[in-house]
Amino acid sequence: MPSATLPPTDAPPPDPPTTRERIVYSGAELFRRQGYAGTGIKHIAAHADATLGSVYHFFPGGKDQLADEVLRTGGSFFLALYEAFAAAALDLPSAVRDFFAGAAETLQNTGYADACPIATVAGDIASTNPLLRETTAQVFESWLGALAEDAVEAGIPAERARPLALSVLALLEGAFLLSRSLRSVEPMFACGAAAVGLLEDAIAEART
Amino acid sequence: MPSATLPPTDAPPPDPPTTRERIVYSGAELFRRQGYAGTGIKHIAAHADATLGSVYHFFPGGKDQLADEVLRTGGSFFLALYEAFAAAALDLPSAVRDFFAGAAETLQNTGYADACPIATVAGDIASTNPLLRETTAQVFESWLGALAEDAVEAGIPAERARPLALSVLALLEGAFLLSRSLRSVEPMFACGAAAVGLLEDAIAEART
Repeated sequence: MPSATLPPTDAPPPDPPTTRERIVYSGAELFRRQGYAGTGIKHIAAHADATLGSVYHFFPGGKDQLADEVLRTGGSFFLALYEAFAAAALDLPSAVRDFFAGAAETLQNTGYADACPIATVAGDIASTNPLLRETTAQVFESWLGALAEDAVEAGIPAERARPLALSVLALLEGAFLLSRSLRSVEPMFACGAAAVGLLEDAIAEART
Repeated sequence: MPSATLPPTDAPPPDPPTTRERIVYSGAELFRRQGYAGTGIKHIAAHADATLGSVYHFFPGGKDQLADEVLRTGGSFFLALYEAFAAAALDLPSAVRDFFAGAAETLQNTGYADACPIATVAGDIASTNPLLRETTAQVFESWLGALAEDAVEAGIPAERARPLALSVLALLEGAFLLSRSLRSVEPMFACGAAAVGLLEDAIAEART
């Protein structure tokens, strides 16, 4: 059963981590907090206690290649985390309620730094980096697919499941942005309750 | 009555604009598309057809001071835009439906570049620039206040109005992020319908 707190949106590297693992982990932490443009590859190297040469050894494509791997790794980790919450919960609305509550606790525990593993990058590269934009789209679609599948399993018709998944994910992403800006978990709890309400209404409607 | 399309989230400068107006307008366009870290002050000067010296003449505090003014200007403009939609609409749910539809049209008309005037900056500076974070918080609060006030006028109890305003704004911000990443207006329309549903349910509940 997952703890109520989301881990900092990426699994910590194994102990002791390899140099490559440290680089990916540092990239993940800096990208999700500062975005793509705000994070230099030298900063990532220093944060990972690695040389710039070793960063380019593992990622010959430089910052773009590293960011691509970080987005995919963070995307898979967040998906697995959602699936762990879903497996441990009584039903889909409870899983979503727990997930938002875990996100609120993580925000508080990290001084409102750790939010979605890809949103900050997704926002700042959407209009400037088509390849990374495509990666963020694939990650979002993987989450939407899992949510929509669980909605269908909960009895919601397929044509309602997709817009519902989009709304629940938008509530989560919007809540991350508002909670980080206002430095308050109020948006996360309000949006969690709204997401749960949307799911409960759709399930109740499907039953009648 | 406002057109169905949101203007590009900032009023265009008067014609002919002053140098200062061109700088603010260019800053607004670049910041909202690329974020704070991704936008250099030299790039803003070049985009505004101004010298770097004139940027520092008008904004001795440099990029931070310019960003602060851009965030406040964009925030006021977006608030006025919402109020124009609200004044022209039959009721609050219709105003919100029209606003999301206008946002979808603006995204399409600008190649998914123009979204919320402050979200991209709000995301990339939330953990790194306390002064600008506070500015984004004030702007979000001004929007939340207007939405909550209109919800109360629509008959929704005050204690429900605030979480509802947070949810509607989070749906809009999450939809901007997802629509820009997926390059599709599907998230904007799905989230608009969800926001309208939340408002209609709260109004119906308040009546019984």
